[in-house]
Amino acid sequence: MQAYTLTVDKFLDHAAKWSPNREIVAADQGRAGSRLGYAALRTRSNRLSGALAAIGLRFGDRVATLAWNTQHHLEIYYAAMGAGLVCHTLNPRFTVAHLAAIVSEAEDRALAVSASLAPLAGELAALCPSIEHVIVMDAEPPQRTFGAARVWTHEALLEAHGAPASWGAFDEHAAAGLCYTSGTTGNPKGVLYTHRSNYLHTLRALQADAFAITGADSLLVAVPMFHANGWGLPFAAPAVGAKLVLPGRHTDGASLAKLMRDEDVTIAAGVQTVWLGVLDHLDAEGGELPALKRIIIGGSKCPDALIERMEERLGARVQTSWGMTELSPLGTVAPPDAPPAAARGAGRPPLGLDLKLTDADGATLPKQRGVTGRLKVKGPSVVGRYYKADADALDSEGYFDTGDLASIDEEGNLSIAGRTKDLIKSGGEWINPAEIEDIVGRHPHVGLVAVIARPDARWGERPVLVVEPRQGVRLDGQALLKTLRGEVADWWIPDLVVQVETMPLAATGKIDKVKLRADYAAGRMAGEGANR
Amino acid sequence: MQAYTLTVDKFLDHAAKWSPNREIVAADQGRAGSRLGYAALRTRSNRLSGALAAIGLRFGDRVATLAWNTQHHLEIYYAAMGAGLVCHTLNPRFTVAHLAAIVSEAEDRALAVSASLAPLAGELAALCPSIEHVIVMDAEPPQRTFGAARVWTHEALLEAHGAPASWGAFDEHAAAGLCYTSGTTGNPKGVLYTHRSNYLHTLRALQADAFAITGADSLLVAVPMFHANGWGLPFAAPAVGAKLVLPGRHTDGASLAKLMRDEDVTIAAGVQTVWLGVLDHLDAEGGELPALKRIIIGGSKCPDALIERMEERLGARVQTSWGMTELSPLGTVAPPDAPPAAARGAGRPPLGLDLKLTDADGATLPKQRGVTGRLKVKGPSVVGRYYKADADALDSEGYFDTGDLASIDEEGNLSIAGRTKDLIKSGGEWINPAEIEDIVGRHPHVGLVAVIARPDARWGERPVLVVEPRQGVRLDGQALLKTLRGEVADWWIPDLVVQVETMPLAATGKIDKVKLRADYAAGRMAGEGANR
Repeated sequence: MQAYTLTVDKFLDHAAKWSPNREIVAADQGRAGSRLGYAALRTRSNRLSGALAAIGLRFGDRVATLAWNTQHHLEIYYAAMGAGLVCHTLNPRFTVAHLAAIVSEAEDRALAVSASLAPLAGELAALCPSIEHVIVMDAEPPQRTFGAARVWTHEALLEAHGAPASWGAFDEHAAAGLCYTSGTTGNPKGVLYTHRSNYLHTLRALQADAFAITGADSLLVAVPMFHANGWGLPFAAPAVGAKLVLPGRHTDGASLAKLMRDEDVTIAAGVQTVWLGVLDHLDAEGGELPALKRIIIGGSKCPDALIERMEERLGARVQTSWGMTELSPLGTVAPPDAPPAAARGAGRPPLGLDLKLTDADGATLPKQRGVTGRLKVKGPSVVGRYYKADADALDSEGYFDTGDLASIDEEGNLSIAGRTKDLIKSGGEWINPAEIEDIVGRHPHVGLVAVIARPDARWGERPVLVVEPRQGVRLDGQALLKTLRGEVADWWIPDLVVQVETMPLAATGKIDKVKLRADYAAGRMAGEGANR
Repeated sequence: MQAYTLTVDKFLDHAAKWSPNREIVAADQGRAGSRLGYAALRTRSNRLSGALAAIGLRFGDRVATLAWNTQHHLEIYYAAMGAGLVCHTLNPRFTVAHLAAIVSEAEDRALAVSASLAPLAGELAALCPSIEHVIVMDAEPPQRTFGAARVWTHEALLEAHGAPASWGAFDEHAAAGLCYTSGTTGNPKGVLYTHRSNYLHTLRALQADAFAITGADSLLVAVPMFHANGWGLPFAAPAVGAKLVLPGRHTDGASLAKLMRDEDVTIAAGVQTVWLGVLDHLDAEGGELPALKRIIIGGSKCPDALIERMEERLGARVQTSWGMTELSPLGTVAPPDAPPAAARGAGRPPLGLDLKLTDADGATLPKQRGVTGRLKVKGPSVVGRYYKADADALDSEGYFDTGDLASIDEEGNLSIAGRTKDLIKSGGEWINPAEIEDIVGRHPHVGLVAVIARPDARWGERPVLVVEPRQGVRLDGQALLKTLRGEVADWWIPDLVVQVETMPLAATGKIDKVKLRADYAAGRMAGEGANR
């Protein structure tokens, strides 16, 4: 058969040729924003590749981005990857020190930045001498200096040096993207995506039992493009010629509801907090989203009650999913026609990912259904070795350890039961915080909930229940603990309840348990003991 | 990212693990047939790999099949491919001489055959000394001798030598399948499919705008597994865990209608003549197919009126498509939600295939929409070089010449306008038979129609209209020609109308124009001249 390399620039080429006028719409802080067809975007993006070459960037060089979901960010994605540069997406919610460590490890030579993030980029560039060029998207930057870097605006760079470039003229195993994990459980680790891994991930996600996006769809990407390839959607949309709707910086309920209505969004993807905002907005202001058919959620486990509320209020099917930065990121997803919320878990793995459950020693469990084990995965879009690591992150059978505890039901639906690193060892036995959090989280006045370990002289560790009440209500700690009786073993029930006004969140929106543990250790937590 | 080879055995592995009890149902000449889950089929198929190794077959060896769509045929597919053998599907409608030439070129070492085809296999084996083993599926063979080959029944072979085998332990560019083109326009040519090309073709076909098969579907494969990978459906069904319904030998309307009803078929794939049979049966006998949602048709252009009749009578959407053996075979397909019949043509190319239109000299047409040109294609599942050919079958840009004349509308829908080899050169200008056939084919009393060239002293060539009337009606030749006036240029109108009782068909069901031209040349055609 023909030689044909699997490179991601082919997605945009395909869209430009077969859906030239299908639009990419990017909202801009509530204003009209930008609107462009795939053919025009492909031309701009390809000419931007030429500009990147003209300012000295070469095959394999890293181009960092610090940007929201915008047309310019999408242009940089394809301009970098198409030319064989590595698009290194940075999370603007990381601290500047954290970002500087990442940029230094990656030796990023250029940094493309949304104008509203220019101050952060300025601090970062001052710390990172590897950054030779800063490209400011959207507008003129608010300041003029970014360390020693030469500063361009996106449009000025295109105008000065834009030129047609040859795309995809390299091996499909070439690096395309770089993304660091959130580091909630340790130092951030880089995952280097290849063209092949992204291409195969795209086809995998496009299956009819997965994202099932068609050329007739209008797709809202409310998941940040700086995190894990934006769930692969910036590849999937042009691959099928779907309309691509990018919310820019503002993902509050009012902005998203307006955008979804204005652009007839049929499929929307984002984490549950985003949809809570949309629900609350619609409940308060009224309104419907008549075109919406499906919502793809991921990030962390969504309570069944919220799924039911979303399906009822929005008139759309909710597809639960599970993924990780290390998986490009799609692991499992509930099909569009999945059973009710309670029975779908995080869905099933579409072709292209193998899962297995092991015991704590890594031995494959003899029974893989209806039991909880450590979840390991294998596939062409799964990390083999972290960026610049000395050794593979794989077991002897070539599987990657997700660090998750999970179970799989008889229908093949995965349920994440917790993180292995969160487990609490009390009296030589394991307590799974996620199970306790699940139960307490169902209480109508509980907003966010976390269970962490505190050192205990007698038992080794004991669980502490930390809650953020809803709307400032003061909770009855004893009543919360009572909800656990009969649901978990008595010795699993925490000895201490701590109420916090605001739960600390890590940069990806997950609860920051590292900070919670530190706060506890430093005596910054006042709690209420359990009545035993 | 992880090393992971794209091999087709992973489709069946995935189904065995994630849809172990989803069934493969094979009808057996009107009787109950077989019914087995994917896990059980995977075990049998894998053990059959062990048996093939035990009788001496080695990596890269060719195993021919001469078989209907049955469970055993599917087992051989995966047993051969999984072990790195090449599954060479033979078309039982080819003549024995034709088959012998193909088997000799391929040097097939084994031949697996449906019991009802054993007599043909016997003749074939006698002519082909390369065949060392004959495996008779389904039942005891009606005769004992197959040339000098050792004879096994499928079950006896499994019982005697079945053993677990290692699957997919080779490069993804290894050959998986071999299929020869029909040879309506010349000598048959072999297309050697690789694991990679089949894997990528499967993911391509599974997109939501293409075949869009889900795990909830029940898929009828009424297209023969011996032709062009059975449109890739024996791969696509296990890849998503769909129920797979195989009709065996009998694809008449009554058998198919019963099978579709009994097995709640939701998606059915086959050529138009098959659906005509189903329609006629249901019209005569009554009955509905309530589960049926979609019908995928291909092979040759289907009249709009027949599409509309199918959609109305069967209550299902018809997806038109275009493909070739050389394309694995999917080229274009109309999405499930495509516009009305008249506007969908043969559909659009899902990601993974590039198309271009050129002039007769191979130069790309400056305008690619709304004009007719020679259709050339490129992609990872497109032939690069025919089996055992001396040179690539590609142009300087790496495109394969399909031999089709085609146009593409503004929406990207392809319409095949004819075959370049069928074109008739009259007075130095080209006449396209397909356009004439289209118009005459709309006449309610015309069954099949073909336009061929006859030599002409003055004009070089002139067109002859050959028709097979419906149900033995005698047609008025002048009236037929009259339908062309105003629709095509006057000089395109044939000078001669020939009525035949039965149109000669090639082994793949297409009209055999080679035979028609030979019959005309030999004076075996009596025609009616045109009144000018």
